[in-house]
Amino acid sequence: MIISTKRGTPAAELDKIIHEFESRGLSVTMIRGTDYNVFGLVGDTTVLDEKRIRANPYVESVQRVSEPYKKANRLFHEADTVVDVNGIKIGGHEKIAVIGGPCSVESEEQAIRIAGEVKAAGGCMLRGGAYKPRTSPYSFQGLGTEGVLDMVAARKATGLPIVSELMSEDKIDEFEQYVDLVQIGARNMQNFQLLKAVGKMKKPILLKRGLANTIEEWIMSAEYIMAGGNENVIFCERGIRTFEKYTRNTLDLSVVPIIKQKTHLPIIIDPSHATGDWRYVESMSLAAIAAGADGLIIEVHDDPESAWSDGAQSLKPEKFAAVVEKGRAIARVVGRDL
Amino acid sequence: MIISTKRGTPAAELDKIIHEFESRGLSVTMIRGTDYNVFGLVGDTTVLDEKRIRANPYVESVQRVSEPYKKANRLFHEADTVVDVNGIKIGGHEKIAVIGGPCSVESEEQAIRIAGEVKAAGGCMLRGGAYKPRTSPYSFQGLGTEGVLDMVAARKATGLPIVSELMSEDKIDEFEQYVDLVQIGARNMQNFQLLKAVGKMKKPILLKRGLANTIEEWIMSAEYIMAGGNENVIFCERGIRTFEKYTRNTLDLSVVPIIKQKTHLPIIIDPSHATGDWRYVESMSLAAIAAGADGLIIEVHDDPESAWSDGAQSLKPEKFAAVVEKGRAIARVVGRDL
Amino acid sequence: MIISTKRGTPAAELDKIIHEFESRGLSVTMIRGTDYNVFGLVGDTTVLDEKRIRANPYVESVQRVSEPYKKANRLFHEADTVVDVNGIKIGGHEKIAVIGGPCSVESEEQAIRIAGEVKAAGGCMLRGGAYKPRTSPYSFQGLGTEGVLDMVAARKATGLPIVSELMSEDKIDEFEQYVDLVQIGARNMQNFQLLKAVGKMKKPILLKRGLANTIEEWIMSAEYIMAGGNENVIFCERGIRTFEKYTRNTLDLSVVPIIKQKTHLPIIIDPSHATGDWRYVESMSLAAIAAGADGLIIEVHDDPESAWSDGAQSLKPEKFAAVVEKGRAIARVVGRDL
Amino acid sequence: MIISTKRGTPAAELDKIIHEFESRGLSVTMIRGTDYNVFGLVGDTTVLDEKRIRANPYVESVQRVSEPYKKANRLFHEADTVVDVNGIKIGGHEKIAVIGGPCSVESEEQAIRIAGEVKAAGGCMLRGGAYKPRTSPYSFQGLGTEGVLDMVAARKATGLPIVSELMSEDKIDEFEQYVDLVQIGARNMQNFQLLKAVGKMKKPILLKRGLANTIEEWIMSAEYIMAGGNENVIFCERGIRTFEKYTRNTLDLSVVPIIKQKTHLPIIIDPSHATGDWRYVESMSLAAIAAGADGLIIEVHDDPESAWSDGAQSLKPEKFAAVVEKGRAIARVVGRDL
Repeated sequence: MIISTKRGTPAAELDKIIHEFESRGLSVTMIRGTDYNVFGLVGDTTVLDEKRIRANPYVESVQRVSEPYKKANRLFHEADTVVDVNGIKIGGHEKIAVIGGPCSVESEEQAIRIAGEVKAAGGCMLRGGAYKPRTSPYSFQGLGTEGVLDMVAARKATGLPIVSELMSEDKIDEFEQYVDLVQIGARNMQNFQLLKAVGKMKKPILLKRGLANTIEEWIMSAEYIMAGGNENVIFCERGIRTFEKYTRNTLDLSVVPIIKQKTHLPIIIDPSHATGDWRYVESMSLAAIAAGADGLIIEVHDDPESAWSDGAQSLKPEKFAAVVEKGRAIARVVGRDL
Repeated sequence: MIISTKRGTPAAELDKIIHEFESRGLSVTMIRGTDYNVFGLVGDTTVLDEKRIRANPYVESVQRVSEPYKKANRLFHEADTVVDVNGIKIGGHEKIAVIGGPCSVESEEQAIRIAGEVKAAGGCMLRGGAYKPRTSPYSFQGLGTEGVLDMVAARKATGLPIVSELMSEDKIDEFEQYVDLVQIGARNMQNFQLLKAVGKMKKPILLKRGLANTIEEWIMSAEYIMAGGNENVIFCERGIRTFEKYTRNTLDLSVVPIIKQKTHLPIIIDPSHATGDWRYVESMSLAAIAAGADGLIIEVHDDPESAWSDGAQSLKPEKFAAVVEKGRAIARVVGRDL
Repeated sequence: MIISTKRGTPAAELDKIIHEFESRGLSVTMIRGTDYNVFGLVGDTTVLDEKRIRANPYVESVQRVSEPYKKANRLFHEADTVVDVNGIKIGGHEKIAVIGGPCSVESEEQAIRIAGEVKAAGGCMLRGGAYKPRTSPYSFQGLGTEGVLDMVAARKATGLPIVSELMSEDKIDEFEQYVDLVQIGARNMQNFQLLKAVGKMKKPILLKRGLANTIEEWIMSAEYIMAGGNENVIFCERGIRTFEKYTRNTLDLSVVPIIKQKTHLPIIIDPSHATGDWRYVESMSLAAIAAGADGLIIEVHDDPESAWSDGAQSLKPEKFAAVVEKGRAIARVVGRDL
Repeated sequence: MIISTKRGTPAAELDKIIHEFESRGLSVTMIRGTDYNVFGLVGDTTVLDEKRIRANPYVESVQRVSEPYKKANRLFHEADTVVDVNGIKIGGHEKIAVIGGPCSVESEEQAIRIAGEVKAAGGCMLRGGAYKPRTSPYSFQGLGTEGVLDMVAARKATGLPIVSELMSEDKIDEFEQYVDLVQIGARNMQNFQLLKAVGKMKKPILLKRGLANTIEEWIMSAEYIMAGGNENVIFCERGIRTFEKYTRNTLDLSVVPIIKQKTHLPIIIDPSHATGDWRYVESMSLAAIAAGADGLIIEVHDDPESAWSDGAQSLKPEKFAAVVEKGRAIARVVGRDL
């Protein structure tokens, strides 16, 4: 960590600063400049609070050199982490996982039918929303427990593991019991209470990126989960908010090489929520695989016009099959299977 | 609501669309254009789901004309709502409320001491964090229940009502019992489970704006709380995320006239979190009052350098007193008292 | 265009509005709502000025249904436009064009040497900056005319057409004479004087997207050039500004399917400026091709450490060759050649 | 400047880096860390190019400690700069300058009439657009030279100095001859050719902030002008692009204390373009004065509904007079006159 102090800081204040850091076991080097003095701190700085240091009126700026995360950091864990989702392995050199399913679960019959179509098209897991985060209190909020049980029935019928979003601590027991991959949605990426709670679950976590969060903040949210004891975290990019109006959000595919460089965890891409328009899902799916993603999570609905939510971004099963087919060819070019 | 359909949409499809909306009790008018046809829907469109309509492959775009909120909407509730926080009235033509206190409660002694200083300086309410949302799991997370009880002791000592942030449903009973104004933080602005839960509380809610949320989304979050039965919501602007690096966030003061035009609820400003630097707090506080805000919430600490969090943005009590003093003079110019 | 008027607008004012639009040759339909009245205008609305309409105090909102661009609009020009850059064809079903070269031209010898390496690796065009837009007046500003002539020498030596950035009207004659593809940089995307000026050039234009501009604004800038008479415009995405700090900008690959849907013009991708880091260039290049881009423009330098600008984002020739090689395999999967 | 190098960088490479900076006259201190080594450079680092340093593959990160600007920097010029605009002084402890006028000049008669109203209401300068930056090539582009001459006639009639936007180098002689304060618009804030050109003008420059630019970039654009020899630069905040839809842009008033802390130059506020809605202009004007701004630039039109551009954000003269009146009262509270 690098701390610079203002011009004219009294020597006694500089000494106080040095002494404070040394008393915390850090080694301190001071560089005297013309307009500023700079301190370099060596040691474990993850416990230091930048804002608190900045409160010293003689401090001009505080800059981290090393990353604030440890457990997720590839620097301390070189090998790729492979996450096992009820038998499906994600990450490392494993097959690219293509997950499909409806935005909202609408009925047991629908869940089973779409799960069958996803499986037939080459998908390896079923997604479906039972608890839905909606901007308006007047919109459909999901079937709740009934929706989770519909997914369980679809798993029983097809063998596909299931992924669904958890929105509150209240339902942790339900998800621990029934769901194979527990999704934390974009709007809850910094719901730290929920992150702590899922850090104690046994099930792997799919951590979506917040709408306006940096990659570092995203990794710090994974660190919350890992610090709680659950090291099976999969990142999921689902688009960030930008000024663009022609898409719902802007898919940031550069996260793929970055997450793989900074962390040892798998990353998958959600082109459906990112673009909000089924017409852009195929091209973004192929791009994601070309970029090196470990998987895709795609909305699939056999009757998008009648879908209870987000029909505009859902692929019909035959288009989903085409994505799997072309995606497989792209995967081979980048040395993966699908 | 205005729906436009693509060029070449078959007449039968147009009829289907008209029929669907009419069957929901809406009146539909169609305008035939050269490149598009447009439908205007008249009636209660708040229940319609834009995304679902957009799923129709013949639909080009969907645009709302009327606002998606009802209970918060000034159109249906002309008079200003005045919220009573344990005797302190906020909103309408009431006195401008200046709330002060530490970012984190550190001890009972500290809470009582700072409360006394806030009161002496002209503040009317005490703020203090007991549960802290922190980006890093390794940062101080707040004293929890102990911190809440320290605040209660400070209220007893000074008579100042207390405001503190609620981070999870688990603590609702605690906050209902002890806290006068329940804060929902920026990162939980779209934690819809928590919004539903506080919608059932008897205590007024201070709803902070999310870091990258629009005013409409913010009002929709108030609508969640109000739809649950709790109509005592106060908005709090605390800065939004922009590309700027010289401030922590960018304070958006234009929300003041907009919130007052679109809704009937009070709005207060948090210049401390917005700027992240105590040197900018006075000028932004005066600007907020000049803009018409109903109150301020300012971080005050008597020893910012030793503060357990966010010292850099805390005012010393004498500077806080100066803000109150100058703010009172500004308030009179805009026809308010403080 | 859809115009809604406020509740309580007097009938006489509504009549005035209708009359004004009808007098401009537009057909007007009015929909009477409960809280608003809505007007639908049919005809050529591209000439209407939204802001001027919004100035009417009875107008609540103005929304366009049809796009504000005509010449760039695929609705009125179904076939793909293929742009010929001194013999290299870009767009439609032509080969994917891979352009390489240094950020800044440093000498004739350097330009010729790197051009040779780009050509050997499979590149079809040489890029190089002679006039450099730099944030600081104290940074290297480019070799100017000398740099352009160095590029000309490199073209003579290798046969590769050359692309370079034009920063002012002053140099239009120079660029018309020497440069094959005239680049308008991100910071000049809305320098409307320059857009008008290049609209009169005979050479094709490479129009980079502004750092914080929407796709619609970008297409409107192409429309400026086309309205001036120059219809040979190629779009170039080079990343947009977001909150992310791990990359210089955020590459938005969803522009590829969108530009192809909304316009008939070609689009190429610049992964070097977008990411600012050579380590992410290969994966983003492959992703761009998978997404359907018509070309790539990549920074190549044989000694990035000594490069006069942007060395951090430059590929060494052998890495550039690897991108071409793998890119070719991806191209075949999506039905293109390279 | 602080440079950190990657773990495992060979000693010989570290020596090469040290040697390179020392050969440029900088003093270098190295701090050996556990995961990184860090170099501190002391001396004039404004000439160093961060991107070039980052090109070294052993370099992990580069961070500036001191600001990259010199001439604009208050560190090297403690006293406030007061800019004289044809007799009107702006900055320091001078009177707050309120500038008013139409978005577009429409005729000599209109310019004279509105100038008279602005003057009568207490305004001290006339604004008016003769060259208009418009997103669409089909929108009104301004009267050009005729508009400038209409402003000149208005100055002659009222004595008010005039401010107008310069869009290209071509018109520099015209502006040098006729215009008192030369505006560089938001879209040209990083049109570096134009900045260099106005750096050679004798007339003071009003530099608007770009729509998505940081304060540091804005100051660097002032630095371009000052480095050219023209030190009479006035900053003008006119709102930045955010996700908000209820306002055209988001007015960032925190720039006022920051510009005053970081530079010695004056700053004025444009609430009309920032909000895009006349209903928010008064409250934002009063807030700007309370925040410490040196002036306001407000759109005034006596018939906004018929204005040729931006009528929606123009105040009628009587409302403008009310802003001046209330603004004067606010000014006194913050120790200024108006």
